[in-house]
Amino acid sequence: MRKTAFLFDLDGTLTDSVYHNAMAWYEAFLTEERYVPVQQIHHRIGLSGDLIMDAFLRDLGIEVNESQQSRIQAQQQKKYQEMAHSIRPLPGAKELLQYLDKKHIPWAIASSGSKETVQRNLDCLDINMADICVVSRDEVSRGKPHPDIFEAAARKLDVCIEDSIVVGDSLWDMLSAKRAKALGVGLLCGGYSEDALQQAGTFRIYQDPADLLSHFDEVA
Amino acid sequence: MRKTAFLFDLDGTLTDSVYHNAMAWYEAFLTEERYVPVQQIHHRIGLSGDLIMDAFLRDLGIEVNESQQSRIQAQQQKKYQEMAHSIRPLPGAKELLQYLDKKHIPWAIASSGSKETVQRNLDCLDINMADICVVSRDEVSRGKPHPDIFEAAARKLDVCIEDSIVVGDSLWDMLSAKRAKALGVGLLCGGYSEDALQQAGTFRIYQDPADLLSHFDEVA
Repeated sequence: MRKTAFLFDLDGTLTDSVYHNAMAWYEAFLTEERYVPVQQIHHRIGLSGDLIMDAFLRDLGIEVNESQQSRIQAQQQKKYQEMAHSIRPLPGAKELLQYLDKKHIPWAIASSGSKETVQRNLDCLDINMADICVVSRDEVSRGKPHPDIFEAAARKLDVCIEDSIVVGDSLWDMLSAKRAKALGVGLLCGGYSEDALQQAGTFRIYQDPADLLSHFDEVA
Repeated sequence: MRKTAFLFDLDGTLTDSVYHNAMAWYEAFLTEERYVPVQQIHHRIGLSGDLIMDAFLRDLGIEVNESQQSRIQAQQQKKYQEMAHSIRPLPGAKELLQYLDKKHIPWAIASSGSKETVQRNLDCLDINMADICVVSRDEVSRGKPHPDIFEAAARKLDVCIEDSIVVGDSLWDMLSAKRAKALGVGLLCGGYSEDALQQAGTFRIYQDPADLLSHFDEVA
């Protein structure tokens, strides 16, 4: 019998950190006197750090040179750290992971964030990186919406990606899931609309981890 | 000939302040050890301050007594003020208002915010409250989604609300517009989804004030 595994995005899926992330980008751009509307940033969160910068430059016509780009990225990290004290687990996040453990269902975290950001977010879930299966952006050559992060997580768990369920809050998670031939389950708690997630080919949509847990029989 | 007037919401419609507002509520709730997911807050921004608190308590099962409610509201104001330095006009906001002035089309601002919050947001548009037609929450007995704020703005302009166009970013603006028998034009720049705005009976939807301005002939 093939085993279903769960591959989780972190930011906006298990931790309530998307808005912190978006505001940190917004403030970081302002330090270089570039204004990017917060909503435009919000809808690009979940893309890998390098791709997110490209997306801003391409879609919004923002012009910044390479040294400005580096400074903006550094400022974003700094401002995110300053705000990180108020990051909390999303409703049901801890309970869902505990439930999977209890049922011996393998799970991993597959995040677009750097190792540092991932550990900071795991802290609020009371999880130590060393105790679980994690793939961060640093470990693969291509970030989301490439399927690489989720594929690497499935390999680490020694499960088949085609039998895995990718849980994420962003369009980019759902596109990655499709490209990896996994089933994508979308959560609304990161602020993406139901519509946007549905159009990206989501298998099922729930409000947050608590809602997924209480409908667990629908997906696995 | 009947004259079309424009009645604008402010927060998320002309100024990029919805996310600041949402984060200020989020942090304010945490000071009383209450966790409310940011996305849940975000989608209630635009409701009047008193109704927004009721909505949190009812929809999210948060329990707070009256003195906690007052402290949370005071903290929200404080935190919003602390963040307000980075509020910017949304793309095209100033240009759209200048265009209306040039064309002698009457316009007003109709906001759920207090007089104080409204002036702070107008500052970033380089507008003095005394120079324009404004209705803030303090001036009417019922806030959005009641139609009162928009109706009062139409009266102040001495125009007919039925011939007016309400421009807003939130569900609550669109519901207010419907109840006032005005046409509602939705903007996506506050972070509400196209779907949510459409379901609230929006006449037309644009990305931001700049997009509305460049399609001006579609609405007036």
